[in-house]
Amino acid sequence: MERRFESELKTLKSRILEMGGYVEQAIDVATEALHERSSAKLDNVHPLERKINEAHVLIDNQCVELLARQSPFAADLRLVIAIIKINTDLERMGDQAVNISYNAEHYLKDRRIDLADDLTKMAISVKAMVRNSLDAFMKQDTTLAQSVLEADDEVDAFKRRMFDQLLPFMKQSPDLVESALDLILIARNLERMGDHATNIAEDVIFACTGEDVRHGGGSGQ
Amino acid sequence: MERRFESELKTLKSRILEMGGYVEQAIDVATEALHERSSAKLDNVHPLERKINEAHVLIDNQCVELLARQSPFAADLRLVIAIIKINTDLERMGDQAVNISYNAEHYLKDRRIDLADDLTKMAISVKAMVRNSLDAFMKQDTTLAQSVLEADDEVDAFKRRMFDQLLPFMKQSPDLVESALDLILIARNLERMGDHATNIAEDVIFACTGEDVRHGGGSGQ
Repeated sequence: MERRFESELKTLKSRILEMGGYVEQAIDVATEALHERSSAKLDNVHPLERKINEAHVLIDNQCVELLARQSPFAADLRLVIAIIKINTDLERMGDQAVNISYNAEHYLKDRRIDLADDLTKMAISVKAMVRNSLDAFMKQDTTLAQSVLEADDEVDAFKRRMFDQLLPFMKQSPDLVESALDLILIARNLERMGDHATNIAEDVIFACTGEDVRHGGGSGQ
Repeated sequence: MERRFESELKTLKSRILEMGGYVEQAIDVATEALHERSSAKLDNVHPLERKINEAHVLIDNQCVELLARQSPFAADLRLVIAIIKINTDLERMGDQAVNISYNAEHYLKDRRIDLADDLTKMAISVKAMVRNSLDAFMKQDTTLAQSVLEADDEVDAFKRRMFDQLLPFMKQSPDLVESALDLILIARNLERMGDHATNIAEDVIFACTGEDVRHGGGSGQ
């Protein structure tokens, strides 16, 4: 029984990792498309989101089956529950990537605002958060998970910096309002992805230690 | 054993309902505070979010213990997993209510833009989604859960309507940009709360029928 559990857990973990890979690709595709102002490229986020959604349903069902058949407890149980939660967060990152594609309409057509460098830097930070939160999960590394929680502050700072740069554009010219607003919403989408990676890191810490680090500061995101 | 499980499930369900009550209160407090332009009243969202967070940790731990001790399967197992997920969505609604309080700074000080009526209507729709998704959960009523999925389109329409009204303000006068942007972000926060209620409704349908209605249309939120 034990061996069967370990083997199924291994499959689940590799599926989570694969799903995380699609999320990273979706961030890359979206960021490059914005950089190149390519609507066609931005559409490539959608097939990636479909893969994320397929993985989501597959992993969720496999977790329920595993719990039903093997009735794990203690650390093993916490691990399967962590996978259920991580799966949900990855799926919602996929939604956010798609939201980026929906929010880009005016920005794609208007080259007068160019924050591609800042956007790319922010996207790199978010991708690192996704990667590190999943690495922390695979290695059960709480120190790495802790570093993801700290990186979230960096992503929030990127978002504020983008807001600060975009407001003057909006005030300067009425016909820049829509494209600046697109970027504000896109920065929020990326920030939300960072929040989901933070949730994953918290779940990893809980799964490893049984210790709840959520709501530590008593404030929301 | 069976009787013990039923009794613990009853406690969990009533805690979820209580938590949903705090979420509804948080929406009320935030909306009324925006209506009255009262920063002091808006601060009352924070103690509600703390209650939501406390309930979140309590329910999560109780679910893990219940799974470990009773090893439920089939419909019972799906129900406990649904509670774990619903719990997460309610907690994130609390975050969104707090985000509303963070996004209101300029709007509170500037009475030239007044979309209180639209905001209140949108908030009422979102509250109904929260209430109905939890009622559907309590009664295991998939028809009611289905109605929540449909109500999400209404909330999205409210958001678009607010965007359409706010853009002219932003274009009309540079010094209206910040307060209009506040309301755009607040409308997004409310929309996100509706998305979380949608997630709950989907979890209810899955818990009741084992049928996965997520990703039905293949598109993100």
